[in-house]
Amino acid sequence: MNTTRIPSPSAVQALLEDLVASARPLARAGKPADYIPALASAEPGAVGAAVVLADASLVAAGESSSPFSLQSVSKALALPYVMDTRGEDAVFSRVGKEPTGDPFNSIIRLEASRLKRPYNPMINAGALVVTSLMPGRSGEEKLGGFAAYAAGLLGKDTLGTDAAVRDSEAATANRNRSIAWFLRDLGLLDAEVELTLEAYFGQCALLVDARALAHFGAVLALDGLEPGSGKRLMSTRASRVTKGLMMSCGLYDGSGAFCVEAGLPGKSGVGGGIVASARNTLGIGTYGPALDDRGNSIAGTHIICGLSRSLDLFCL
Amino acid sequence: MNTTRIPSPSAVQALLEDLVASARPLARAGKPADYIPALASAEPGAVGAAVVLADASLVAAGESSSPFSLQSVSKALALPYVMDTRGEDAVFSRVGKEPTGDPFNSIIRLEASRLKRPYNPMINAGALVVTSLMPGRSGEEKLGGFAAYAAGLLGKDTLGTDAAVRDSEAATANRNRSIAWFLRDLGLLDAEVELTLEAYFGQCALLVDARALAHFGAVLALDGLEPGSGKRLMSTRASRVTKGLMMSCGLYDGSGAFCVEAGLPGKSGVGGGIVASARNTLGIGTYGPALDDRGNSIAGTHIICGLSRSLDLFCL
Amino acid sequence: MNTTRIPSPSAVQALLEDLVASARPLARAGKPADYIPALASAEPGAVGAAVVLADASLVAAGESSSPFSLQSVSKALALPYVMDTRGEDAVFSRVGKEPTGDPFNSIIRLEASRLKRPYNPMINAGALVVTSLMPGRSGEEKLGGFAAYAAGLLGKDTLGTDAAVRDSEAATANRNRSIAWFLRDLGLLDAEVELTLEAYFGQCALLVDARALAHFGAVLALDGLEPGSGKRLMSTRASRVTKGLMMSCGLYDGSGAFCVEAGLPGKSGVGGGIVASARNTLGIGTYGPALDDRGNSIAGTHIICGLSRSLDLFCL
Amino acid sequence: MNTTRIPSPSAVQALLEDLVASARPLARAGKPADYIPALASAEPGAVGAAVVLADASLVAAGESSSPFSLQSVSKALALPYVMDTRGEDAVFSRVGKEPTGDPFNSIIRLEASRLKRPYNPMINAGALVVTSLMPGRSGEEKLGGFAAYAAGLLGKDTLGTDAAVRDSEAATANRNRSIAWFLRDLGLLDAEVELTLEAYFGQCALLVDARALAHFGAVLALDGLEPGSGKRLMSTRASRVTKGLMMSCGLYDGSGAFCVEAGLPGKSGVGGGIVASARNTLGIGTYGPALDDRGNSIAGTHIICGLSRSLDLFCL
Repeated sequence: MNTTRIPSPSAVQALLEDLVASARPLARAGKPADYIPALASAEPGAVGAAVVLADASLVAAGESSSPFSLQSVSKALALPYVMDTRGEDAVFSRVGKEPTGDPFNSIIRLEASRLKRPYNPMINAGALVVTSLMPGRSGEEKLGGFAAYAAGLLGKDTLGTDAAVRDSEAATANRNRSIAWFLRDLGLLDAEVELTLEAYFGQCALLVDARALAHFGAVLALDGLEPGSGKRLMSTRASRVTKGLMMSCGLYDGSGAFCVEAGLPGKSGVGGGIVASARNTLGIGTYGPALDDRGNSIAGTHIICGLSRSLDLFCL
Repeated sequence: MNTTRIPSPSAVQALLEDLVASARPLARAGKPADYIPALASAEPGAVGAAVVLADASLVAAGESSSPFSLQSVSKALALPYVMDTRGEDAVFSRVGKEPTGDPFNSIIRLEASRLKRPYNPMINAGALVVTSLMPGRSGEEKLGGFAAYAAGLLGKDTLGTDAAVRDSEAATANRNRSIAWFLRDLGLLDAEVELTLEAYFGQCALLVDARALAHFGAVLALDGLEPGSGKRLMSTRASRVTKGLMMSCGLYDGSGAFCVEAGLPGKSGVGGGIVASARNTLGIGTYGPALDDRGNSIAGTHIICGLSRSLDLFCL
Repeated sequence: MNTTRIPSPSAVQALLEDLVASARPLARAGKPADYIPALASAEPGAVGAAVVLADASLVAAGESSSPFSLQSVSKALALPYVMDTRGEDAVFSRVGKEPTGDPFNSIIRLEASRLKRPYNPMINAGALVVTSLMPGRSGEEKLGGFAAYAAGLLGKDTLGTDAAVRDSEAATANRNRSIAWFLRDLGLLDAEVELTLEAYFGQCALLVDARALAHFGAVLALDGLEPGSGKRLMSTRASRVTKGLMMSCGLYDGSGAFCVEAGLPGKSGVGGGIVASARNTLGIGTYGPALDDRGNSIAGTHIICGLSRSLDLFCL
Repeated sequence: MNTTRIPSPSAVQALLEDLVASARPLARAGKPADYIPALASAEPGAVGAAVVLADASLVAAGESSSPFSLQSVSKALALPYVMDTRGEDAVFSRVGKEPTGDPFNSIIRLEASRLKRPYNPMINAGALVVTSLMPGRSGEEKLGGFAAYAAGLLGKDTLGTDAAVRDSEAATANRNRSIAWFLRDLGLLDAEVELTLEAYFGQCALLVDARALAHFGAVLALDGLEPGSGKRLMSTRASRVTKGLMMSCGLYDGSGAFCVEAGLPGKSGVGGGIVASARNTLGIGTYGPALDDRGNSIAGTHIICGLSRSLDLFCL
């Protein structure tokens, strides 16, 4: 019953440039993720943003082509991939759909909750289950299939990998390894632990830019159709489930605040990216490695909230 | 940038009657809340629904005028009341905006979380803080002011009270009393414990029907304007914050699933009511005292999800 | 099968004086409890200690007659009182016997643990249940009966009360009030909340000195017999259960360390007192209001550990 | 200052035979550990017990020579080994001395507690840290050194291994693997995860019998001296720390109850063994694979409590 007026590219261009400019000084209050050197060395002042409209027009400002690793944004790509290849039930018989007040890397509810399963696919525990379900018998096969799928959603032919990020996460991610073994103890992993971790670190290290995230946001906005071509890239159902979970769990401990301020489904990653989508209208991709104390890009939340206000995208 | 086509009342009428009819057999799988006798005696097979369109037309089906107590739906009325009378900061300096994976009556995070304050105003702990902030020096004054405000949002002149529910909750609600004293220990209550509890039990026992909830849903859909008259009943900001929190925390432990299935902000109560709103389009009110194991009306979620699908109201 | 050689009073006298002297400078590292003014004003440098031998000889050094409030030491007096007047089962059908790693005033396990009851009678939640079980229909009656019983164990005719401490705790103890309402919600309190709290604050405010605690320690050492007279003051069973729980839970978060260092059952209070007992041999009472960061008297633990080493009292 | 009268072997013999006989029917209420087949196949009706007196006399009854795996009893052997080879501080800078109300295989407090380290060396998390500290650069070296040390305490030349138990635990112990990776993430493991797990599963699978456990109990009773020879096998300090921790944390969730009933330090394992010690007097070893719902041998706790009562061994 909803219809929408697509904004004009030129109006968005001016707006986006203003928002990138006003984001730059704000970013100084944050700092890049520092748990691995490969992320800590990001240029903290970098800010980029892109919008892809429903008709496939691209608008971009700032460092919109600077590459960065997907990190947790990959959770919003892996979920529809596995829903569409393995079936919704394969995922949600093992993982819930509910938000949790715990940190993204918490292990507590696996032991303490009644159901003893991850609360949703946007926290690490749930994402590891999703990755274990990816088709393929090796980590390489799983990752290969996913990367090809993700490239399509991101509007790219292929995706590069930040090998330094991947190797350094693989070497240090003992907490994720602990979570994975706990999941295995609960019978929730569909693949071997190390193979799952290999694919997981691989998916987090895939390289994107703000433009690619905007393209993915537009696919979500169109409930799975490619902007421009209208080609179906994911099922409507997978798109809606993914957006529903992004809405309540997409920005770590800042999910509720983002829901209230932006009123749009979004997903952030510690690499500095955020994707958001406005139904039938447009997708947004932002880059800004300076993070707030909840792990979300300061520039990115500023830009998305600004677009939501100016273009009246608040969806609730 | 969003525009919407308002559906025709006659189309909604047929749809609503179908949904009420198909909800009746489903409701048999649930049962009314039984922690107090006054709720347990509700007719489990009752089902009613109403829609108020943006132009104020009313569509109703089933037991849409049967009275029931607001219970937790009152949290979605109390929040904008206190935001608009005391200021947003008075609330959110004491309560967060984030969902929590814990039960609605949990006390754990008041002790265990880093910030030691309720995660959001939709759980009991947060709602008690909100109630303590209502203007007025006695429980009666607080409740009186709130009931007048709520009546306006619900499209009524005045609201009755289910005195049996109120008194029986006041007599048995030791868990809420425990939460209130903990909040007082943390310095988060703005009024005496017993006075706050008196107003809280009073707000939960206010009587509404599905039609009144639909009116309130329409006010939220119009970001605070009264349908028909266009009179402002709450600030745009209060409306948006309320809808954002309903979206991620409105249906207890079923909030995430409702977000994914209905794609609309909603708030349920154990009295059997649910309110939902679709931006610029309509408000929905449902009644069905048979609850699922998460405390949400079985008939209500069925009807709202059905309306969302048929009228394409999924907002994400 | 154990027999014991009672040390000579003169040897103990010299030892005790040395330990009191060496405790004085250590106490400077701590500070009195400061959650109520009446405790915060204690003289932080005060140190006193007493030993009552199995034959009732008394040895004392330092401020051994300075009065202070029992506080949590009262938990070790209330437990045998209620076991002997109401029966062991009345207590342990409502409270466990297991240590917990949580703080003394924690409420979490009442909600989160499988059994939903206090883990032991040495934490506040368990002690409130014990107090609710004291004979008497009013708070005054409960407290009166308990105070008479406690006076006997402490070798006194009657016990005074620090009214400032009692009133100030009653006025500020919202956390205890929260715990009590939670216990009531679980059906574990055997009396009204306010009446239970009145008796509880009263028992914590009873005045003792180090000599009285040493007398109580000697009664425990003799499994319930009064030193000297041999008169039975508590059942053997109550004495052993109390000592068992003191051993694993008597010194808050420092219980395990005290068990390893002193090797004796002990119970501390934030008023600055500690009681300990060495089977068949002697009781120890200490006073020193300067507390360590776990809430235990620095002077007291120093003196008891020193006595244990020098007199070979380590019981394990 | 304590002296003790050693009971006569013939008196103990009669007593032990009575207790073994009365334990047999009780054992029917329990069942062997069933998380691995190699343990589940134990003869549930088997009951054996032994006492080693301070003069090295051995008294035994029932299946006192039946072999079974050490399981968690190894924690009470590993702690003094590492304290005496690596120093007390190496252990207790990484692990606490406090009991916890959580299950033996809980991971929650590693994330949730303030100190983020295992509460004590008697739970799996703490024991894994202790094992990682064993001298040796491979799992085999660590285990070899420990097995030689343990053999001495158990009065054996060498110890066999239940290879089926070890391999089956290594294959299924994903929870322990999860805990170990979490410990590594916290920087608390002093060796690689897999190497630590190899040594840990090896120590749990070492074969003993009730007589060997009684010998170890006697060594603890003599604070580290071998009964008979008087040769020092462990330091007094290591013995006391170990007994202190056994007292408050030795029988899983039944530690507090055992402390109250037996009044002796003890350590149980799911293989069916329990060791206990009575200061200067004797050591007790029991075998009975039928476990209660807390994982402790039903026959073993019956026999040890019976000996404590009849021989007046209650130490508090």
